[in-house]
Amino acid sequence: MAGTDSSKDFETRPSPAVILCEPQLGENIGTAARAMANFGLWDLRLVRPRDGWPNEKAVNAASRADHVIDRVRVFETLEGAIADLTMVYATTARPRDLQKPVFGPEKAGRNLVGHIKGGGGAGLLFGRERWGLLNEEVALADAIVTLPVEAAFASLNIAQAVLILAYEWRRQTELGTQLPFADVLADVAPREELTGLFGHLEDALERSGFFTSPEKRPTVVNNLRTLLTRGQFSSQEVRTLRGVISSLDRKHQRPNPNRNKFDE
Amino acid sequence: MAGTDSSKDFETRPSPAVILCEPQLGENIGTAARAMANFGLWDLRLVRPRDGWPNEKAVNAASRADHVIDRVRVFETLEGAIADLTMVYATTARPRDLQKPVFGPEKAGRNLVGHIKGGGGAGLLFGRERWGLLNEEVALADAIVTLPVEAAFASLNIAQAVLILAYEWRRQTELGTQLPFADVLADVAPREELTGLFGHLEDALERSGFFTSPEKRPTVVNNLRTLLTRGQFSSQEVRTLRGVISSLDRKHQRPNPNRNKFDE
Repeated sequence: MAGTDSSKDFETRPSPAVILCEPQLGENIGTAARAMANFGLWDLRLVRPRDGWPNEKAVNAASRADHVIDRVRVFETLEGAIADLTMVYATTARPRDLQKPVFGPEKAGRNLVGHIKGGGGAGLLFGRERWGLLNEEVALADAIVTLPVEAAFASLNIAQAVLILAYEWRRQTELGTQLPFADVLADVAPREELTGLFGHLEDALERSGFFTSPEKRPTVVNNLRTLLTRGQFSSQEVRTLRGVISSLDRKHQRPNPNRNKFDE
Repeated sequence: MAGTDSSKDFETRPSPAVILCEPQLGENIGTAARAMANFGLWDLRLVRPRDGWPNEKAVNAASRADHVIDRVRVFETLEGAIADLTMVYATTARPRDLQKPVFGPEKAGRNLVGHIKGGGGAGLLFGRERWGLLNEEVALADAIVTLPVEAAFASLNIAQAVLILAYEWRRQTELGTQLPFADVLADVAPREELTGLFGHLEDALERSGFFTSPEKRPTVVNNLRTLLTRGQFSSQEVRTLRGVISSLDRKHQRPNPNRNKFDE
């Protein structure tokens, strides 16, 4: 979905840091940065990226998430990368034999939002492309986060896992209900206009011979009025429909030059 | 995150169809299929894919989401692709001048779950890589769905948009709380074991000369007991800590051959 409004400045609000442990491919660093940017995260930390830093492939894959890429910090150790944080969650798709709580993204998001609101620093750890986080890395975290994926198809790449957790974080902040645009629904037309439409249609149908059975007429009219009410038409839409009726009504009265005897 | 359990068969539960309108790159069809598979969606429909179908690049990018790829159906028209559906939502990142309700993913997910639970067929429309859906395509939908993205960085690729909506759908079904694995937290040790730990530690500290001020001793002891209670240690962890205390305690008593006069 396109739609970036680059005229709007990015704001570095308090939000979770994303820590990638020994990422191998620059592309994955870039797509993770992009996923962060989508939902307002900006603090990306790399522990020993295989191909060093800066990394041109990461920049390209980030699709202009420059405000994230430009702020990337590189660390020699995970301990260093999380030194300033007071809440650290490790993401993993595999169970670990560690005495850690395991949360889904919803609970994790709720905890992160609460912690950050209280002024704390929080971070999410993500592991290597091939084998994720080491147990000694998970051991440094307060809890494990895993996603409610389909057991038969649980493999997510790093950017997808970052995207879901960044989304959950944002969903649970006050930004989560702020959509980039809203309905442009016009007001529903006043009832007077709707009853005008009913009268117009029923007159036209009367002339066209639509009501074949006088005793069924009230029921048919009620059904028509019901279906025409359900759409909550605007004044403009009522006018459009009245134009449709007028047009069909005139067509009905106009002799059709193509009409042949079989139509009579 | 790795972790796919390919021994588990995929189940085609009732779930929203994903309809891609004129997708250009096979890679994007594949990554969309993969995102669907992560959260249990399987009904992928393509309207006039630029490079035809089947598409080898799509298969490769799908990372073994074969159960989705194998079920792909191709349609000549969007009308044909949504013919059997009774609820259709169009995803877009741009406002449209159409009288349609605009929902975020949460509301959209709630509506989809309700509709599908009631036996209805539902689908999500996604547009072209470059310019999304045409207004005439959006016009065929019941409502517009857009994501609560950062205004300054709103650009999502198709697979990311599919991933978020598939996640929201699953989150709001009963599957949303089913994580692939759970805590393996052992039971908290009975208090008797904890008080044993307190006694052991306090005796050792007594011998090591930790309590320098007799009048402050009760406060220091209370603080130690408080911090040792907060971790909700298991029996195994209490035993580990007692081993730690014994080890340090013995070390204290053992004459240190490296100790020099300045340490006395």
